[in-house]
Amino acid sequence: MIRRIGHKSLDFGDSVYVASRSAIGGKAEGDGPLCSYFDEIVTDEYFGQKSFEDAESELLRRTVVSAFSKIGKMPDDADVFFCGDLENQCVGSSYAMTGFSVPYLGIYGACSTMSEGLLLSASSVAAGVAELSANATASHFCTAERQFRFPLEYGGQKPPYAQWTATASGCIVLSGEPSAVRVRRATVGKIVDKGICDAANMGAAMAPAFADTVLSHFSDTGLTPSDYDLIVSGDLGSLGSSLALDLLSQNGLDISSRHFDCGKALFDPIKTDVHAGGSGCGCSAAVLSGYLLNELERGRYSRILFCATGALMSAGRSRQGKSIPGICHAVSFELVKFA
Amino acid sequence: MIRRIGHKSLDFGDSVYVASRSAIGGKAEGDGPLCSYFDEIVTDEYFGQKSFEDAESELLRRTVVSAFSKIGKMPDDADVFFCGDLENQCVGSSYAMTGFSVPYLGIYGACSTMSEGLLLSASSVAAGVAELSANATASHFCTAERQFRFPLEYGGQKPPYAQWTATASGCIVLSGEPSAVRVRRATVGKIVDKGICDAANMGAAMAPAFADTVLSHFSDTGLTPSDYDLIVSGDLGSLGSSLALDLLSQNGLDISSRHFDCGKALFDPIKTDVHAGGSGCGCSAAVLSGYLLNELERGRYSRILFCATGALMSAGRSRQGKSIPGICHAVSFELVKFA
Repeated sequence: MIRRIGHKSLDFGDSVYVASRSAIGGKAEGDGPLCSYFDEIVTDEYFGQKSFEDAESELLRRTVVSAFSKIGKMPDDADVFFCGDLENQCVGSSYAMTGFSVPYLGIYGACSTMSEGLLLSASSVAAGVAELSANATASHFCTAERQFRFPLEYGGQKPPYAQWTATASGCIVLSGEPSAVRVRRATVGKIVDKGICDAANMGAAMAPAFADTVLSHFSDTGLTPSDYDLIVSGDLGSLGSSLALDLLSQNGLDISSRHFDCGKALFDPIKTDVHAGGSGCGCSAAVLSGYLLNELERGRYSRILFCATGALMSAGRSRQGKSIPGICHAVSFELVKFA
Repeated sequence: MIRRIGHKSLDFGDSVYVASRSAIGGKAEGDGPLCSYFDEIVTDEYFGQKSFEDAESELLRRTVVSAFSKIGKMPDDADVFFCGDLENQCVGSSYAMTGFSVPYLGIYGACSTMSEGLLLSASSVAAGVAELSANATASHFCTAERQFRFPLEYGGQKPPYAQWTATASGCIVLSGEPSAVRVRRATVGKIVDKGICDAANMGAAMAPAFADTVLSHFSDTGLTPSDYDLIVSGDLGSLGSSLALDLLSQNGLDISSRHFDCGKALFDPIKTDVHAGGSGCGCSAAVLSGYLLNELERGRYSRILFCATGALMSAGRSRQGKSIPGICHAVSFELVKFA
């Protein structure tokens, strides 16, 4: 069952459940407070490969295999797979998924990729065209640094509002088979560009998109913030989170008591100086697939709204002086109360 | 109505129709045999912008506005929009769609983007969650050359099996409202990598994926090649087309009498030396949105199978010696026989 509610939202009723999930992180992520929620921490930044790029693909591939192995399945058992990442032409995902024989649809939402994949994956199960569907994404600090910023050897410095690309990944497998956690609703975001041109200031570029999608979600569904235990932003970091709360407050919505930002939660700021917080597709993907869904399953939370945020920029366009469009898609999860 | 048939295919029944379409091309495309099928030919490769990258976005934006204006609508009237392109981080699309206020989902399928967008757009209409949905893509010769190959000023030479990125774009608007052309079925492709490492040889890299998807389509649907007037490949070019026909023939499927390759059809090889043919997301997008759907509407063809093909490569990974994974998604169109 899939039904549109309002202009931009979807209601999946009780037709889509989390069948499995997995999260893998790198060394700095393993030093963070969410360490115990990862399925694996890999301290070798090459993941046994010859390049950082191959490492990113291996990270993603390993997470996908891990998620499926927990339910005694193989990735090829999925009816459809949605993947994307930050590498040019999304090749991190393409190379990760090469070798599997599964219907594959590449997506691009920058750091909003996890929620975009989730809403498409959930839609395919809810519409009855997939029995088992999956989505995954990853990011790698070393590939992102040299692609978007400087070679690591250069030792470039960043402004305090910059963020740290997580070496992490998440994969979620969905099916119609009832489980402890249901995917309940989704809101498709629109592109919002408020004119931020500083490529280091992604939190500010994405905050307006987060605010827009959260407002749309409540307007479309008739729900209020108190219907959720947590309203999760992807990787706004400390500056972006503060801006987002201000923007929502200006629109009459106070979510401050239940706001949670994956970028602020992933790292231990004493052990790893990540400036304004974590970022990258894998940041919110791993925090959701590892920590958040675990806390939902064990009953600490009953309902969360997961809103991964993306900065739709490229290094080349930023050098041309273009501003950075942001986007945010929302997906809600519910703990299923077994009678 | 949306229904899965076989492992990888979808049947939309009679629930999805082409509401509007538009195609825009550049100068070399206007010199080609399909000139009269374009809605606009723009001879200024800058499209009035300051960079080739902004030109690519302007090309896409203009095509989107053109498609919607034909039915008295604005892009914002769409319930969901699927876009993607070849620029790093798909920013050609992001910047094109910035300024519109429409639920937006970014996709990446390299030159298979048109069929990936179509199958997602058709699915959203068929599943009843969108009344009006759209997808679009574009490519630009000048942005692709400098991003994937060499600066234009370098005047680099290419091997004879290389292809020429089209400066072209296509947008298709779908709805449930009956029209002359129905979107009937789709097959989601899987990644196929046969080890081609030469980034100039994209036809060879994509041909196995085309063959795989065509075989899956007929296996899933129970149809045979004679059920289609044309079986269209995206941009295999002359070498890739020949390889694809051989591969299918080895698998007992002869489609030679009804095979049509958009890359071979777009340019006039006397006026423009495009080597093995056209390529780029915009090539098959424009040939479909301009020529093919026109010929379907006026009854020259009754049923076509459109299979855009993508090479999931990046310049960086190719320099690292990686082989090029290919993918192909298929979407079929039918002329509606009005009683």
